[in-house]
Amino acid sequence: MIVVLAGGVGAARFLQGVVQIVPPQQLTVIVNTGDDRDFYGLHVSPDIDIIIYTLAGVVDESHGWGIRGDTHNTQQELSRYDSSEDWFMLGDRDLATHIHRTHLLRQGKTLSEVTEGMRQRFNLAPRILPMSDQPVATHIQTPAGLLHFQEYMVKRRCTDEVQDVVFVGASEASPAPGVIDAIKQAEAILISPSNPIVSIGSILAIPGVHDALHEASGMIVAVSPIVGGAPIKGPADRLMSGLKMEVSAVGVARCYRDFLDVMVIDEQDAHLAGEIEDLGIPAAVTNTIMRDSAAKAELARHVLQAAGLQFS
Amino acid sequence: MIVVLAGGVGAARFLQGVVQIVPPQQLTVIVNTGDDRDFYGLHVSPDIDIIIYTLAGVVDESHGWGIRGDTHNTQQELSRYDSSEDWFMLGDRDLATHIHRTHLLRQGKTLSEVTEGMRQRFNLAPRILPMSDQPVATHIQTPAGLLHFQEYMVKRRCTDEVQDVVFVGASEASPAPGVIDAIKQAEAILISPSNPIVSIGSILAIPGVHDALHEASGMIVAVSPIVGGAPIKGPADRLMSGLKMEVSAVGVARCYRDFLDVMVIDEQDAHLAGEIEDLGIPAAVTNTIMRDSAAKAELARHVLQAAGLQFS
Repeated sequence: MIVVLAGGVGAARFLQGVVQIVPPQQLTVIVNTGDDRDFYGLHVSPDIDIIIYTLAGVVDESHGWGIRGDTHNTQQELSRYDSSEDWFMLGDRDLATHIHRTHLLRQGKTLSEVTEGMRQRFNLAPRILPMSDQPVATHIQTPAGLLHFQEYMVKRRCTDEVQDVVFVGASEASPAPGVIDAIKQAEAILISPSNPIVSIGSILAIPGVHDALHEASGMIVAVSPIVGGAPIKGPADRLMSGLKMEVSAVGVARCYRDFLDVMVIDEQDAHLAGEIEDLGIPAAVTNTIMRDSAAKAELARHVLQAAGLQFS
Repeated sequence: MIVVLAGGVGAARFLQGVVQIVPPQQLTVIVNTGDDRDFYGLHVSPDIDIIIYTLAGVVDESHGWGIRGDTHNTQQELSRYDSSEDWFMLGDRDLATHIHRTHLLRQGKTLSEVTEGMRQRFNLAPRILPMSDQPVATHIQTPAGLLHFQEYMVKRRCTDEVQDVVFVGASEASPAPGVIDAIKQAEAILISPSNPIVSIGSILAIPGVHDALHEASGMIVAVSPIVGGAPIKGPADRLMSGLKMEVSAVGVARCYRDFLDVMVIDEQDAHLAGEIEDLGIPAAVTNTIMRDSAAKAELARHVLQAAGLQFS
């Protein structure tokens, strides 16, 4: 069994490579739910949806989220009732997911159960686990106050100065069923090229996850989402610099240094390998820019190789 | 002030005439909510929506409900998660109403408050009141068991034998704020050509409404929804015959005999006038078939005249 820790778009693209190499039924994906938020009373789990829509081949690739070719008639009409949330785009087909999820959660089902139903509806083989069944809400402390991550990122477009990151609810949350066992029993644990602060950081903030990674027998290999000093996508640079971290693959390696076995960095960052190895973490250099399907598979093969695994 | 008691499609068409005659800000519509039901966890109030969409000019006239030109992408996708409720059609734009209403109700707003917001969003002048802010669910007792009215009508297409009609929750419900005062103070109370059993009957089942009609100082005038022995639309005939009532304007008059001042019947039923008058209720004969906008206005004018009111 291979475990992948996942945020949203970067992780989904990485997984498109992994499923080309690893038999998908041998894959467990543990997904960040710190970005979850209610919109119009509907529970949206952005990263779970991005992972599932992407693996199902229905994602809108131009955005990396949402459903390809979706219409937006419901939200257009919703905005006429209440325009306060029209900064978050919800397509009509996408809304079915949120309506269904909210309905089941209100009936008492857990987010794990809802996510498993969604996996089945999209006929996916990998096991997909939310990091926790309890609500965790990533917030960004800014001069304008404490902002939900979606408000910081989508509504205010990452323009506020980052003073701190707070995972509201994390300390009272438990890992979702299967998360700890999957980590401990995995042959390898792959950390996606996701935002180390808010996507992977929120997973690490769930009590028990950090310890499980320490105790894991499989190799732990991370892919840097920072290439040439900037993130491929998203605000990782602003968050890292706000927290006084170096915005580089070295800074990412430091986030994971407690448990990381290998850091995979891009060829552009080959000169940082020595600095990472000074942290006691071997660095593997390869092309991490996932331009196409072949490049995604190639990256996955390299990462698995770095974890000591070979798939035919 | 004129009060109209309303069900769904028949009432909405009647109201299209009334608003041509009565200044709409002098109109209060009290709407049946016994047909309300949750679909996919969303609170749907079919009759309120029909009334508002129709008065706003956005209704799909071919059905009498829903929004003209609406798409159905969300429900198509919802059915792939859960096909158990795909017998009830919910358009994408229409869903915005249900999502918004559910969100506000869960926040603690009353159905009256939600309905008032909906009225404002659609820029309507008439006051629109749900019959009650508490849940009332009309059920039909059949050999197959007790069925929610929507299941009886929409899902099972009125094919079950009707043994009884039960307004679950009605005896514990209160009239919505304004309902009793509006009835007592109205210059006239018009009972739409709606189903006397489930549409008007549910309003009458709310404690206090029947008494208020008794005490009302304004004339109470009803329009028969049964013409030539059959309803213009809907299952009123099956419900009336199931309850051993005569399926005719006379049967309708008997439903309202406790408080009715004038019964308006169609020209086709002119021969029934004597039998209605034998109940102590004067009958006014006119064309009640609302073929077009002019016919709707003409019917409204006749009904108001029967109530002793003249509008220029």
